[in-house]
Amino acid sequence: MRTTVGIIGGGPAGLLLARLLHLEGIDCAVLESRSRAHVEHRQRAGMLEQGTVDALRACGAADRLDAEGLIHHGIELRFDRERHHIDFPALTGGRTVTIYAQTEIVRDLIALQLAAGPPLLFEAEALAVERPESDAPVVRFVREGREQALSCAYVVGCDGYHGISRNAFPAGRSRTYAHDYPYSWLGILADVPPSGEELIYARGAGGFALHSMRSPTVSRLYLQVPNGTDVADWPDERIWDELAARFAVDGDWRLERGPITAKSVTPMRSYVHEPMSHGRLFLAGDAAHIVPPTGAKGLNLAVSDVRVLARGLIESHRTGSTQLLDRYSNLCLARVWQATRFSYDMTRMLHAQPNGDVFDHRIQLARLRRITASRHAAAELAANYTGLPLGP
Amino acid sequence: MRTTVGIIGGGPAGLLLARLLHLEGIDCAVLESRSRAHVEHRQRAGMLEQGTVDALRACGAADRLDAEGLIHHGIELRFDRERHHIDFPALTGGRTVTIYAQTEIVRDLIALQLAAGPPLLFEAEALAVERPESDAPVVRFVREGREQALSCAYVVGCDGYHGISRNAFPAGRSRTYAHDYPYSWLGILADVPPSGEELIYARGAGGFALHSMRSPTVSRLYLQVPNGTDVADWPDERIWDELAARFAVDGDWRLERGPITAKSVTPMRSYVHEPMSHGRLFLAGDAAHIVPPTGAKGLNLAVSDVRVLARGLIESHRTGSTQLLDRYSNLCLARVWQATRFSYDMTRMLHAQPNGDVFDHRIQLARLRRITASRHAAAELAANYTGLPLGP
Repeated sequence: MRTTVGIIGGGPAGLLLARLLHLEGIDCAVLESRSRAHVEHRQRAGMLEQGTVDALRACGAADRLDAEGLIHHGIELRFDRERHHIDFPALTGGRTVTIYAQTEIVRDLIALQLAAGPPLLFEAEALAVERPESDAPVVRFVREGREQALSCAYVVGCDGYHGISRNAFPAGRSRTYAHDYPYSWLGILADVPPSGEELIYARGAGGFALHSMRSPTVSRLYLQVPNGTDVADWPDERIWDELAARFAVDGDWRLERGPITAKSVTPMRSYVHEPMSHGRLFLAGDAAHIVPPTGAKGLNLAVSDVRVLARGLIESHRTGSTQLLDRYSNLCLARVWQATRFSYDMTRMLHAQPNGDVFDHRIQLARLRRITASRHAAAELAANYTGLPLGP
Repeated sequence: MRTTVGIIGGGPAGLLLARLLHLEGIDCAVLESRSRAHVEHRQRAGMLEQGTVDALRACGAADRLDAEGLIHHGIELRFDRERHHIDFPALTGGRTVTIYAQTEIVRDLIALQLAAGPPLLFEAEALAVERPESDAPVVRFVREGREQALSCAYVVGCDGYHGISRNAFPAGRSRTYAHDYPYSWLGILADVPPSGEELIYARGAGGFALHSMRSPTVSRLYLQVPNGTDVADWPDERIWDELAARFAVDGDWRLERGPITAKSVTPMRSYVHEPMSHGRLFLAGDAAHIVPPTGAKGLNLAVSDVRVLARGLIESHRTGSTQLLDRYSNLCLARVWQATRFSYDMTRMLHAQPNGDVFDHRIQLARLRRITASRHAAAELAANYTGLPLGP
């Protein structure tokens, strides 16, 4: 098999890149190790920056997003039993965010690609990227029990943290930066209408809680729990009671309860792989960086990587110039580190330290209080949350 | 002895309070445990917020400050061998800060008070505050070997972290919050003109360094060093070499060297005592809170405490109402925690973690980079540095 751009990974990054290249007439192929059903049912993020929505719209992948996405004009910060609305449009000159699950984006992009796009091979497991420094890198993969080779002009690793791409960098040619947080999220899906229209980021006395939603009838809620927590120790009633305690305010607000349909515990990690390219191998999305979910940046970073990379590949295809491709890593990393910083700060501001440090708690409350008191501080949060601009 | 307001401590907080009360015809007396010569030669902070300058001017204590103070229109942030100016007037609607040593303020206030003010007793060591809950608290003190009593309507503890006032709260009636930082400052005074007109906050590869000045002919410089550092291990050449390395930039900037006249190592601590009052005993300044010097907030917080307290005492004197006095602690603590947060953030942004955490270093650089890229982020720094408004 031969293609111009070999894309490893059929998540949102790989599928969007394939779409962007296809529209410019650039040959590509996507190798996805899992089945279509598996990919279309992975529960992931669902908060889209304006720029992410714009990108999906520009490539004709936003019909359902436009019909079903929930536009949010802000978030609520909750602490000291008080409620504070952060008004994004007022603070950013009109920007909003949109709730639309990553799973749905993946479904939309898969449907488009299978209908008229470049090859998308499911259950095609990449094994190795060979000769990334050369003009003709090769992706070795297994499909239906048979090992095959995909010869490419460029290889893009969109295969996440557990994929093979980031490990295809030769020893000594990359450096990694990591931070593990001393807490996890217990997340639930519940068949109950959201208890309010906005996301609520709460710093309760017992720690962090997040109120979110998948749709007008499905709530998505999260609870800070210790690392190593077993979901078996959290029967439904305990979850609802703890959520209710962390969201408690002075005034009449009530957490709606309903049947819990999914329950899982996720650790929190920051990770950055530098550089994001080596020769003709490029990393995008979780293959190159991971953020804790508090800032809702993971999916959005993947999309912004791909937007920059698509521009570079298109420039190279049209003009032969690799100027933009050569700057890909630096351009993306500048934005990645800003998102990493923002995600770290949001996480540290809202989670209780497991050692119960009271000084730290007061600093958190002072930060939250400052955001509600200073237009500049609130505008900084809004600018980061709705998404910083792409590099040049 | 009898007075209306007994003030323990003749530092800037106690002396300014005495001045403010004296101008309103309220009787007071200041007990200072050390000699005048000692108090007038303590080397302390020297960066005054606009509000601090305004307060000194309003009470006629700014003649020399106005003549000799150096007005600064910003600071420089230095990292990655780059220089970035933070323009305070442009970011805050015209606010500036003023360099004028705390020692000089103390001299000016002492001269005023000895000339025409209320009693100021040097070498008068307070031993205890008795009956702070009552209408007639008493300060016991020793002077010239003789124990005496100062009967008051109010007692104000301006005697710093090592004073007796904060320990005069009954058990269980206060709570403290503390944070020790894993590094110290090695500070020097040098007889050499400053190497530039502004303060420079540098995050060098080896850690933090601060370029400051006492006057146009005296430089004040600081270097992050490990806790427990012995100044004997830092001969002058080593200090200058390390400073030069941390301030190094691409471009022509040179650190001027000269004779070092003073050298000391100071640990860094955050500390808050809550509440700041108990009955008729009030704490102000370092007696109630300590911040690391990175944000230049210690002296300014002491002045803002005293301004709020003076208003309350004047209201009580004029109208008999203790409404403002009753709110003293809450009003001050709101501002104290904001300054504590800011000082913590400035400190964490600029100092190398002793464990050499590379992720943490990248987060610091992302923060610094963001301040230079975002007007909101820069304006937040400028607003906090030049001083947040006093409470109502």
